[in-house]
Amino acid sequence: MAAPMSCCRRALLQRFRGQSYCIRPPVRLSSSISKILNGDVEKTELSVTGWVKSVRDQKEVAFLHMNDGSCNEHLQVVARPEMVENVTYGSYVKVKGQLVDSPKDGQTFELLAEDLKLIGSCDPDVYPFKPRTHHPLVYGREYPHLRPRTNIFGAAMRIRNAATMALHSFFQQEGYLHVHTPVITTNDCEGAGEVFRVEPHRKEIMEDIKKEDEKEGDSSNPHFFSAPAFLTVSGQLHLEVLTGAFSKVYTFGPTFRAENSRDRLHLAEFYMVEAELTDTHSLHDLTEVIEKTVKHTTEALLTNCQSDMKTYFKHVAPSEHHTHLKEMLSNDFKSITYTEAIEILIKHNEELTFKLQWGDDLKKEHEKFLVSHFGSLPLFVTDFPLELKPFYARSNEDGKTAAAVDLLVPDVGELFGGTIREERYDILREKINKLGLEADLMWYLDLRRFGSAPHGGFGMGFERYLQYVLGLQNIRDTIPFPRTVRSCRL
Amino acid sequence: MAAPMSCCRRALLQRFRGQSYCIRPPVRLSSSISKILNGDVEKTELSVTGWVKSVRDQKEVAFLHMNDGSCNEHLQVVARPEMVENVTYGSYVKVKGQLVDSPKDGQTFELLAEDLKLIGSCDPDVYPFKPRTHHPLVYGREYPHLRPRTNIFGAAMRIRNAATMALHSFFQQEGYLHVHTPVITTNDCEGAGEVFRVEPHRKEIMEDIKKEDEKEGDSSNPHFFSAPAFLTVSGQLHLEVLTGAFSKVYTFGPTFRAENSRDRLHLAEFYMVEAELTDTHSLHDLTEVIEKTVKHTTEALLTNCQSDMKTYFKHVAPSEHHTHLKEMLSNDFKSITYTEAIEILIKHNEELTFKLQWGDDLKKEHEKFLVSHFGSLPLFVTDFPLELKPFYARSNEDGKTAAAVDLLVPDVGELFGGTIREERYDILREKINKLGLEADLMWYLDLRRFGSAPHGGFGMGFERYLQYVLGLQNIRDTIPFPRTVRSCRL
Repeated sequence: MAAPMSCCRRALLQRFRGQSYCIRPPVRLSSSISKILNGDVEKTELSVTGWVKSVRDQKEVAFLHMNDGSCNEHLQVVARPEMVENVTYGSYVKVKGQLVDSPKDGQTFELLAEDLKLIGSCDPDVYPFKPRTHHPLVYGREYPHLRPRTNIFGAAMRIRNAATMALHSFFQQEGYLHVHTPVITTNDCEGAGEVFRVEPHRKEIMEDIKKEDEKEGDSSNPHFFSAPAFLTVSGQLHLEVLTGAFSKVYTFGPTFRAENSRDRLHLAEFYMVEAELTDTHSLHDLTEVIEKTVKHTTEALLTNCQSDMKTYFKHVAPSEHHTHLKEMLSNDFKSITYTEAIEILIKHNEELTFKLQWGDDLKKEHEKFLVSHFGSLPLFVTDFPLELKPFYARSNEDGKTAAAVDLLVPDVGELFGGTIREERYDILREKINKLGLEADLMWYLDLRRFGSAPHGGFGMGFERYLQYVLGLQNIRDTIPFPRTVRSCRL
Repeated sequence: MAAPMSCCRRALLQRFRGQSYCIRPPVRLSSSISKILNGDVEKTELSVTGWVKSVRDQKEVAFLHMNDGSCNEHLQVVARPEMVENVTYGSYVKVKGQLVDSPKDGQTFELLAEDLKLIGSCDPDVYPFKPRTHHPLVYGREYPHLRPRTNIFGAAMRIRNAATMALHSFFQQEGYLHVHTPVITTNDCEGAGEVFRVEPHRKEIMEDIKKEDEKEGDSSNPHFFSAPAFLTVSGQLHLEVLTGAFSKVYTFGPTFRAENSRDRLHLAEFYMVEAELTDTHSLHDLTEVIEKTVKHTTEALLTNCQSDMKTYFKHVAPSEHHTHLKEMLSNDFKSITYTEAIEILIKHNEELTFKLQWGDDLKKEHEKFLVSHFGSLPLFVTDFPLELKPFYARSNEDGKTAAAVDLLVPDVGELFGGTIREERYDILREKINKLGLEADLMWYLDLRRFGSAPHGGFGMGFERYLQYVLGLQNIRDTIPFPRTVRSCRL
């Protein structure tokens, strides 16, 4: 007599109807260490995989710390010494065992190993990271393919993920539509610095393209896109198109600068969160959203990434950084006009290397001075001289200043920049004419010609935000694969 | 005697401590039409802004349909005829009035206008879209700056937003870490088709860079990044770095092909969702996640975007498309091997234009035939010949095939592609040596040298997915600003 078919097996077979070529194995039970340590997993037999963070081999028992990247904490595995014979720091193992309460203080659970399999070995003499060592951040940058395995960079990446999700959830809750603005663009009108040009790598492809064009007549255009094409420096103009249909939109994508910047604050490829909204009456409509964006995101990180944030407070950020963030959260951001800022800076002329007068742009030095002058908390500076801002910034009634705002934060300086956009057709057309851009920006003027809505928006450098919130000196430690002049590793 | 300060005003002033230069106006009460029609707004005096979708001016009363892009439906405004005198289709208005229950069937609320302000006028004779007209999709593409205001494209963008969020929430729930893989890369090893090259637009910047290099010695390198740089064709190799630390990772970003493709299925810039996971044992570990990804996202759209999806079922998709999606959701995806696929195709040779034999790649024609042969539902094809797959695909035991899978869907063809990656150091090194890539891919081999974890992953073309789920013929109607050979508008 055949053994009766198990209920589970029968259910599995019933899932497949008609002609089917493969029966799938049942789902395996493998648990992430973050779930285990959170108590989200039943205390039973488990299978766990991960990298070994330390091995302590004692006479009768061996202790192993495992990490799978799902959280900052390691899972302690208690094993028989012979199980860990060839297991070294950095190797990848699979452990089957019983999850039990840990007798050790500050540790919730531990795994009593019944079976331990070394899957990927690691020669500790060659592996560039060592156990129980705080490698300097600059050292980690030399190994972009391995530094994600370090505790400190691992924490940064989990915080980066949490910040990304907090930003999405904030804008979605506030009724903003997420949109993808293009990376490649033929618009190079903003004048926001140096740009990268984009061309097909294989020149011969243009011959194929021209051959196909011939059928339709003109085949003379030398550009892949029929016009010179660049990597975007900002999604703003495209966001304005979309806010002209959806009222509130945001984008969160890569932007580029082909600049010779080798300092601690610039990348050639970085992420920007940009938002655009209609029905704006004054800069307050922007500063309100900006302040909420910073606070919502930072609160989410302090709540949801406690252990990872603690790593940064303890090992990386300046002392009192946690206190600073809490103070930032409980205070309204202050706001001064550019004109007031200049008055203050002139009053403190002797403390500054670069002296300023009305009309000059603020340098990093001045931004830092102003932030510190106002209690080392985030500070809005508003209503900059028209000449300092691009053509699309709305002119204020005084005829001298534009409805533009920057948010300055300690150490990092400018974190956000935004403007109310010029929505008045005649005024905008005149500005565009003066720049000789009328032919290129006909479509942009159309947005004001057909159902023009008062609107404005802002952009935040995402890596700058991470630098600020983590208290990180160098922006290259906020992104998995930093791209800067002279460096594009991997 | 001065009037007593209102409680609200006092609270507002109390929010400002210490030195403060600006008192902010109180928050304005402006509501999105989606909230209003959902019943999420109190029936009281309201202020609403948006674009006019139709005006019906009768003797004693005027009816206006307003849309602000927050949903597919319009808000009906009941006004006095003199209020709408210059108000035309396409103009932007602000209406203040009383929200009341609508006496009309199929309409929940309407707004009784007390004040109606025309903010942005629109000349209907020049505006390229007309009221109550279904403009062909190909016509809309001619006006990329205005088509987001059409009902049909508006629905696509709201669905795109919802799909983006559903994908994030799926991967986050499943314990995947979101990471940003680089857009600019010096890795051109994958051979995944034609690439774009990236260079600084202004050649002179290289002089500044070389000058600064001189201080450090060598200034001869002609490339901005010290090596030729390209736009990414896939984040996979970088995802493998990160899965080597976080076990489960995904990315959702732009990818590029410099191809002369002018068909309905290709873009030069498109979005990919790519996921990578460790602890894989067989292709089933991938197909399981792929199937869940499709089903979770599609279910979310059918639940959360009912009205927008209905627009596509009614006006765009093939008939029975809604039924198809529901059938897709309630059936397990079938799976056949490449070898089985070839057997079937050979059996039906006379029905096919391109005859195949084992070892040949499947063309669009064959993909379509297979999908239709298996009931026009999504179909996995697994275990392709080794020669058809890149070097990183894991060799199966038979020595002839690779652990690779494609998911084929009706009409669109290949939607996902994935492989188990070769995690065995010696085998991978041999493959890389044969290709002469050892110097370039030392870092990639390192991932197998130090704690190698069995892993695999897959990528999904996001616009292809939208095409599939919306039943859209042309991929250019799924993205706000399509980029293809010979076209990069705006």
